[in-house]
Amino acid sequence: MSKIEICFSPALIDQYVKKDAVVVVTDVFRASTTICTAFANQCRSIIPVETQEEAIAYKNQGYLTGAERQVSRCDFADFGNSPFEYTEDKVKGNDIVLTTSNGTRAIKAASDCYLLLIGGFVNLRAVVNRCRREKRDILIVCAGWKSRICVEDSLFAGALTSALLEDDHFESASDGTRIAVSLWHHANKDFNKYIMKSEHAQRLLSHNLEEDLKYCLQQSILDVVPELQGNRLVVKDENMACLHSLEELVES
Amino acid sequence: MSKIEICFSPALIDQYVKKDAVVVVTDVFRASTTICTAFANQCRSIIPVETQEEAIAYKNQGYLTGAERQVSRCDFADFGNSPFEYTEDKVKGNDIVLTTSNGTRAIKAASDCYLLLIGGFVNLRAVVNRCRREKRDILIVCAGWKSRICVEDSLFAGALTSALLEDDHFESASDGTRIAVSLWHHANKDFNKYIMKSEHAQRLLSHNLEEDLKYCLQQSILDVVPELQGNRLVVKDENMACLHSLEELVES
Repeated sequence: MSKIEICFSPALIDQYVKKDAVVVVTDVFRASTTICTAFANQCRSIIPVETQEEAIAYKNQGYLTGAERQVSRCDFADFGNSPFEYTEDKVKGNDIVLTTSNGTRAIKAASDCYLLLIGGFVNLRAVVNRCRREKRDILIVCAGWKSRICVEDSLFAGALTSALLEDDHFESASDGTRIAVSLWHHANKDFNKYIMKSEHAQRLLSHNLEEDLKYCLQQSILDVVPELQGNRLVVKDENMACLHSLEELVES
Repeated sequence: MSKIEICFSPALIDQYVKKDAVVVVTDVFRASTTICTAFANQCRSIIPVETQEEAIAYKNQGYLTGAERQVSRCDFADFGNSPFEYTEDKVKGNDIVLTTSNGTRAIKAASDCYLLLIGGFVNLRAVVNRCRREKRDILIVCAGWKSRICVEDSLFAGALTSALLEDDHFESASDGTRIAVSLWHHANKDFNKYIMKSEHAQRLLSHNLEEDLKYCLQQSILDVVPELQGNRLVVKDENMACLHSLEELVES
């Protein structure tokens, strides 16, 4: 049996054992969704960094750069944090450096684990299948908002846990998973309405980003599972040779 | 309007503004319930301390001492963390020093606020009434278990928030309150069954503490609201003179 645990804030990460676990980092609005979309549009790798300074340093080396703070694109950056900006004509075959308010911080905080995956509603089914194949303990890390618990990431954690528990291999380890699953069942009656009242949904709406919101809440529309290799997120296809092997990236 | 916020773990306390707020610390299993019971049995004050060393130092000065770690009473202590130990014949008129695994730590972490109250299911109605009288922002701090989110404290937070929101003076500020209220409504269909499956309920059951559990889940059976004055918890009666004024305590 493998256990499922949920860390509701990156600030609590030290309370969770993750060394041998598969960590799924989620930041539904919007970093997870944006990262998955960039890979679906065939970007080669994404380098998550915590600070704008790091992103600027990469940009000065010639990298394409995505950077967002307080919902908006940073002036120096090529992209913000909207999935619609990461189109195939801009990202295909490219390496992109990304820093966002909460998501990339959560990736960094959780990176010392067996395997780190990026999950959101858009790639839910693909993440479920990948976790099932790994057959290890799962730690779902919610990016939250400035270290606070948030509705949309907690709901994703509940949705992922519910789906994994359909497989007898997994068991719910904790109060955290029960809370998230209960929330998922409670909200699922009218999922969009529930989530649209969340703090961050309201924040995005106030920036006229309703289309971003709707896109982020679509379930299992993308068949990619970004994973961390070294300091880069890449997408491997288990059925083919690794699309962009670490060696290839290191050589480039 | 006053806002309600919930801090699900003492480790997140720095993310919340509490200086001008009424903080309600809850540790349903069992410190909150035990503290309320001791005051219902007319103890004079409770001095919460974080470490066993501090408790021992007080004991050496002649204080009655309650101390619990990993569910059990510490060897040096007069009481553990069961409400049934704090009987009137033992506590009436006495000052008691208390250290517990999670509850007293949460009190210390949250103490820099306008007013700190102790709440549990046993004094829910009294806490609601007190918060309504104060008409200030409310921050509910869940003790959790070793900094992790727990079911019983989150449910109390949901119950308290739900009750306060019946008063137009209060508004829900955040995703945290929505999550707790949703959990409360979800679990309330079969409250005892839901909470009995929680990690800490199971831990207490494994120590044959089923009677403690049942007692801790009774709603509004005690009409006391312990509050922090200096380094001591005391109970004031708003309708009378302060039962044990700070001055009286300082002189003692």
